[in-house]
Amino acid sequence: MSHTERLTRYVAEFVDEMAANGIENVVISPGSRSTPLAMTFVEHEQLKEWIVIDERSAAFFALGLAKKTKKPVALLCSSGTATANYFPAIVEAKQSRVPLIVLTADRPHELRDVGAPQAIDQIKMYGNYVKWFHEMALPEDSEMMLDYVRSKAAQAIDMATEGNPGPVQLNFPFREPLVPDFTIDDMWGKKRNPDKYGFSKGEKVLAPYELQRVLEKLAGKKNGLIVCGPQTDIKLASAIFALAKAWGIPVLADPLSQLRSGKHDKTYIIETYDAFLRDQAIRDMLDADFIIRFGAMPVSKPYLFYLKEQKNTLHFVVEAEEGYREPTGKRTHFISADPATFCEQLARTEMQMDVSWLRKWVTMNEIAEKHLQQHNKDEITEGSAVYSLVESLLHDSTLFTGNSMAVRDVDSFLLQTDKQMEVLANRGANGIDGVVSTAAGAAASGNPVTLLIGDLSFFHDMNGLLAVKHYQLNVTVLLINNNGGGIFSFLPQASEGKYFEALFGTPLNIDFKHAVKLYGGDYCLVENETALQEALAKAQQQTGLSVVEVRTDRTQNAAWHQKIWDAINQEIKAHRW
Amino acid sequence: MSHTERLTRYVAEFVDEMAANGIENVVISPGSRSTPLAMTFVEHEQLKEWIVIDERSAAFFALGLAKKTKKPVALLCSSGTATANYFPAIVEAKQSRVPLIVLTADRPHELRDVGAPQAIDQIKMYGNYVKWFHEMALPEDSEMMLDYVRSKAAQAIDMATEGNPGPVQLNFPFREPLVPDFTIDDMWGKKRNPDKYGFSKGEKVLAPYELQRVLEKLAGKKNGLIVCGPQTDIKLASAIFALAKAWGIPVLADPLSQLRSGKHDKTYIIETYDAFLRDQAIRDMLDADFIIRFGAMPVSKPYLFYLKEQKNTLHFVVEAEEGYREPTGKRTHFISADPATFCEQLARTEMQMDVSWLRKWVTMNEIAEKHLQQHNKDEITEGSAVYSLVESLLHDSTLFTGNSMAVRDVDSFLLQTDKQMEVLANRGANGIDGVVSTAAGAAASGNPVTLLIGDLSFFHDMNGLLAVKHYQLNVTVLLINNNGGGIFSFLPQASEGKYFEALFGTPLNIDFKHAVKLYGGDYCLVENETALQEALAKAQQQTGLSVVEVRTDRTQNAAWHQKIWDAINQEIKAHRW
Repeated sequence: MSHTERLTRYVAEFVDEMAANGIENVVISPGSRSTPLAMTFVEHEQLKEWIVIDERSAAFFALGLAKKTKKPVALLCSSGTATANYFPAIVEAKQSRVPLIVLTADRPHELRDVGAPQAIDQIKMYGNYVKWFHEMALPEDSEMMLDYVRSKAAQAIDMATEGNPGPVQLNFPFREPLVPDFTIDDMWGKKRNPDKYGFSKGEKVLAPYELQRVLEKLAGKKNGLIVCGPQTDIKLASAIFALAKAWGIPVLADPLSQLRSGKHDKTYIIETYDAFLRDQAIRDMLDADFIIRFGAMPVSKPYLFYLKEQKNTLHFVVEAEEGYREPTGKRTHFISADPATFCEQLARTEMQMDVSWLRKWVTMNEIAEKHLQQHNKDEITEGSAVYSLVESLLHDSTLFTGNSMAVRDVDSFLLQTDKQMEVLANRGANGIDGVVSTAAGAAASGNPVTLLIGDLSFFHDMNGLLAVKHYQLNVTVLLINNNGGGIFSFLPQASEGKYFEALFGTPLNIDFKHAVKLYGGDYCLVENETALQEALAKAQQQTGLSVVEVRTDRTQNAAWHQKIWDAINQEIKAHRW
Repeated sequence: MSHTERLTRYVAEFVDEMAANGIENVVISPGSRSTPLAMTFVEHEQLKEWIVIDERSAAFFALGLAKKTKKPVALLCSSGTATANYFPAIVEAKQSRVPLIVLTADRPHELRDVGAPQAIDQIKMYGNYVKWFHEMALPEDSEMMLDYVRSKAAQAIDMATEGNPGPVQLNFPFREPLVPDFTIDDMWGKKRNPDKYGFSKGEKVLAPYELQRVLEKLAGKKNGLIVCGPQTDIKLASAIFALAKAWGIPVLADPLSQLRSGKHDKTYIIETYDAFLRDQAIRDMLDADFIIRFGAMPVSKPYLFYLKEQKNTLHFVVEAEEGYREPTGKRTHFISADPATFCEQLARTEMQMDVSWLRKWVTMNEIAEKHLQQHNKDEITEGSAVYSLVESLLHDSTLFTGNSMAVRDVDSFLLQTDKQMEVLANRGANGIDGVVSTAAGAAASGNPVTLLIGDLSFFHDMNGLLAVKHYQLNVTVLLINNNGGGIFSFLPQASEGKYFEALFGTPLNIDFKHAVKLYGGDYCLVENETALQEALAKAQQQTGLSVVEVRTDRTQNAAWHQKIWDAINQEIKAHRW
């Protein structure tokens, strides 16, 4: 039995089992050591491969594709520093709970720790950031080892998707020659091995007595809140709406909660709290008896202040699996159960919120909405740009938002709408890195993606645009260019004149038009809202890259935001309560 | 004592001790959590800061600066995925033995594992790739803790530079508010603490009886070789020349050995072995009794084949510290001693090589040199482009070469020359990533840098060009654009038609002119050698970015190389020996 036949059968059965267990997409970065897996992935008809050259970008691309399709995606690269470039996206995948199957090709044992080229120590190289690591055996094709390689493919996918999803790594040592032979018979070994592995997963449900403990705490409480942070579980939205209706309880909906948009009844949805919770006096008007939070912490910092100040509030955080996402250090009752099922359990219980409590939140929300919608069509601001973006967003498309200022502006200006959209972002570690590639990966699902992003974050990951060009993905970029780190103008560092521009402002002073040209995209610079809306509408209709740039001033922008917040809070405080 | 004063004194004494222990350059990526260190580095007058936005690029920039200056460089970034972007350069620094002081800002303990923004587990996050990790205490300003923070600054630098140099990580938890106060008196604490820490390092020298063991093995041997792989120890070159002269022994000099160029006597230097060792019959003519290697394995693959075939050869590998860089698996006698001192010890011993042995190598080298210099001035090939590059290289400047094809072409076409130059590359893990940034970092030393690089590697790290623009560094790029992965045309994968272009050829199909515009550089596309030499001469005279592009064809290129090698080997075999 030749080396090449052993190699081919071993790799083919692995790849076939990946496909059998639900892998549809594989993101491959070119390299030599990974040749056996790369060629076999291409050869397997059920798998679609995406070739992305920069491994940092490739890993974020896979992250975006997995995030959007809600299915695990496989990643493959060669040995050496290529693997280290995956690290940022692996960290984000772990923290935002996205399943990735990371396949790293490696030198065989005799070429390790002897100064061989492209050989680095890849054993457990991602530390705690992968849920599971396994060093694969060298290719063999005994019955036992072909069962082994299939079982490891199935196990990797199960490990990545069970509990809180996340990344796993399999490290494959390969000896030369590396080119497989696809002419051998029964290569996929299906006849021998009809769907060998299967997994059935249960969901966590609170037992009646556990539920009782929660309900006893809630008994008689009149001023309750549901808070929904970033989450993508589709069935959760309707369960939360049902609960809100049953209890008459306000729901604070993060922009990434998927609750602000869609055709459902939004009577109880409060989406402008970030604006009015900035005011101490207003926060004091809103003492809550209890808060039940679903999903991660909301993006809003004012909400964080509000929560910290709530002294006599019962605080519940619901996690589908384990998790301790409570950064305020507040005493918290963690509920580890399927969120939708838990909502249904609660909805079956009689509870009635104080009507004036609900009215207070709804009225404040209406006042804030009114101000946030006001803007002058002839000028353009970072806020009004986001407002226009939502207005002109294609029905049933994806809004991908960058971190830092972008997601905060979406929080402020994505008001409740009947338009169907999914809002995504990298909120695991909130990095400004890899955002373009993640958005491109989301677009690889076939759904048009509009990306809202600032200039620093866009610069950081321009390599992600190559895949948009190469695969002609439908990606529209709204580039908010304030020539540097806009968010710092909102922080104490802003007063440090001598250091500010060098360390925090960090102006790029580059004309992104050239970058767009490089990737064969459409580019336009807009100076008023009408032009912006037209440009966005046109851009979303076409495949490939379109970049619409808006240039703003960091200092003016901070002042402009402050002005709106002041107006909102003055009117709310002037209101007769 | 206020939080801000504690923070300021703690950080100031750390920064002051870094400067006191030889840190001159700090590469900073913008962020909020790192504010105390960032502002204090800028405030300290002995330190020069470089602001590089993309952390992956920043780390390679620091690597290049440390490589060129042969001094440790500090790196600073904020918490979160920013830190993960350092990973590729940290791996390269570890394997190529370059000292980096990696400073990562972190959230304080109460904000860890609770879903706080930009908080990831940074404890030992780089695994085995840093020589040392230390989690710093929260800022305090007791006498004890100010001594502690100074000692850790000194220790970090010593750990990074002792033995085989490499990267170390200090992780700094900081609480808000983060802005230090530079108005407090005696901030640097110098009065209290005049140069507290110092280190004196010894060098490893073989004891007489250890040296005797080596000399006994060599006694009576007539056909010896010295092989010098990649290395940057300046004093080694002259020691090796002296030894070669004393023994009349041929020296195979890798392009990164720093032995091919400079005013010294090159009588014994053999630099074209990569060409003629490709031929089995020629390798058979060159049975060696012993080989003494300094530095890492040479770039040349034919040399690897040659070494593997040497059955009755004593093989010595000299490492200044510990190391096992012997990928052929050949029985090897490792000598752990200062290479220059070891050369001097050997030179004092009578040894005489067989004259015909030396003549054989020198004659083959002359034949190869003659062919490698022949080329047609009206056309241009990847080989002749490198030849022209060396011709037109500025005296006393740096040639930075990319990996993959670039370094192999330098190996083939950098013939011995009196011109002074330093040849650098990332040969730790031989990655195609981070090359532009590393070259930019080398140029930050003030020495003009000419970078030879292929299109894939250039694309991978274009973000590195921002620093070239921002600091107007003197960087000339010779971009060899064969629209994809040229090296694969030399590998077995080349015959895999169906997969080749998609998986290995991976054409980018982008016009780099736009990328150069983006960074305000000079760009020109040249089509013959005369134009190339003029363009390179002009480019090296000016600061800022200049890119000279040569477009070639991958398949033709492979054929062209083969043609030269065949001609060389035919003439050598036809020669009367």
